[in-house]
Amino acid sequence: MKQLHRKDLFGWSEFNPERNIDFHSVLWVREGGNVLIDPLPLSEHDHEHLQSLGGVEYIIITNSDHCRGAEQIAGDMGAKVFGPAEEESTFPLSCDRWLYDLEEVVPGLITYRLDGSKTTGELALLLEKDTLITGDLIRCHVGGELCMLPEVKLIDYHKAVQSVKRMAALPGIKAVLNGDGWPLFNHGGEALHRLARSL
Amino acid sequence: MKQLHRKDLFGWSEFNPERNIDFHSVLWVREGGNVLIDPLPLSEHDHEHLQSLGGVEYIIITNSDHCRGAEQIAGDMGAKVFGPAEEESTFPLSCDRWLYDLEEVVPGLITYRLDGSKTTGELALLLEKDTLITGDLIRCHVGGELCMLPEVKLIDYHKAVQSVKRMAALPGIKAVLNGDGWPLFNHGGEALHRLARSL
Repeated sequence: MKQLHRKDLFGWSEFNPERNIDFHSVLWVREGGNVLIDPLPLSEHDHEHLQSLGGVEYIIITNSDHCRGAEQIAGDMGAKVFGPAEEESTFPLSCDRWLYDLEEVVPGLITYRLDGSKTTGELALLLEKDTLITGDLIRCHVGGELCMLPEVKLIDYHKAVQSVKRMAALPGIKAVLNGDGWPLFNHGGEALHRLARSL
Repeated sequence: MKQLHRKDLFGWSEFNPERNIDFHSVLWVREGGNVLIDPLPLSEHDHEHLQSLGGVEYIIITNSDHCRGAEQIAGDMGAKVFGPAEEESTFPLSCDRWLYDLEEVVPGLITYRLDGSKTTGELALLLEKDTLITGDLIRCHVGGELCMLPEVKLIDYHKAVQSVKRMAALPGIKAVLNGDGWPLFNHGGEALHRLARSL
């Protein structure tokens, strides 16, 4: 796994040839149990790396389309799986806990529901106030510039725009770690503001 | 291939499990012939993508340790290969042209020799004044923060530090595209200054 912008954050990626972007997963190493977000299948190397960092206690899935390798990893490593509450009735996996807007999943990790996105309950996660972790709605296809899912994919364009603007209004965002496309490790708030102004 | 911070720049990557970082290559699509820098082996998908963007006319290798897939790609696609002049006597490939400090390889692409690095002639490349493309000396193991090769790997630590400071003194650097480790698409000059101050 690759180190992200903090010593306790790691990621691994997979190139998606249909979209010509990388998909990304995040690991937060912490006392009280490591957290994975939208985990892609792990290579043997990354599986060993993850085990050397203490394995995984919780897996958070931001939306129904980001289950990826979660079921396999949860089974292998005995992790609890948390999913978006608004997608419970159709979620592809059984979850140990369903997450609503503005929940503190573990200390320092807050959910934000992104209303209007591709699925009904998509969540973003704010980690210790300065790192925003996104699933699908907010993404990065051009290095350094955030974009929103195209209108044709959205349940409600205007609600989706409001969701983006809500994220842009969060103060002090340094990093935006996108599930799909390039991460931004610095000046993430600026990029969120540029995106919000463009909509 | 993934789009970088400009519509005419693309990259592809390969995870290196020994270092837990990605290695990166750069493609500049331009009239007068596309340029590849430190090209890794291409997947079939990326090979087709490259061909759809006009193939490749020139391959620039920043140092002897970054030949990677250059010979294969040059053979397949009929590209000319350019290497660092100070490494000519020991370079693993035959080159069509040898590059010295401050050469304009093609219009808008300038070489900078990074004296003191791991190999004698390592080059960085400045693309249209705002995008610095590095080989080995300047790299990024922690998202958003540049670092220098460890002293033990350097021919001359003090010269290497001067080389980094020379790059940090370039005005208007927006992006730093590292051969090894995360790219920085925005505020690259700031990151170069932070690195230079830390040495």
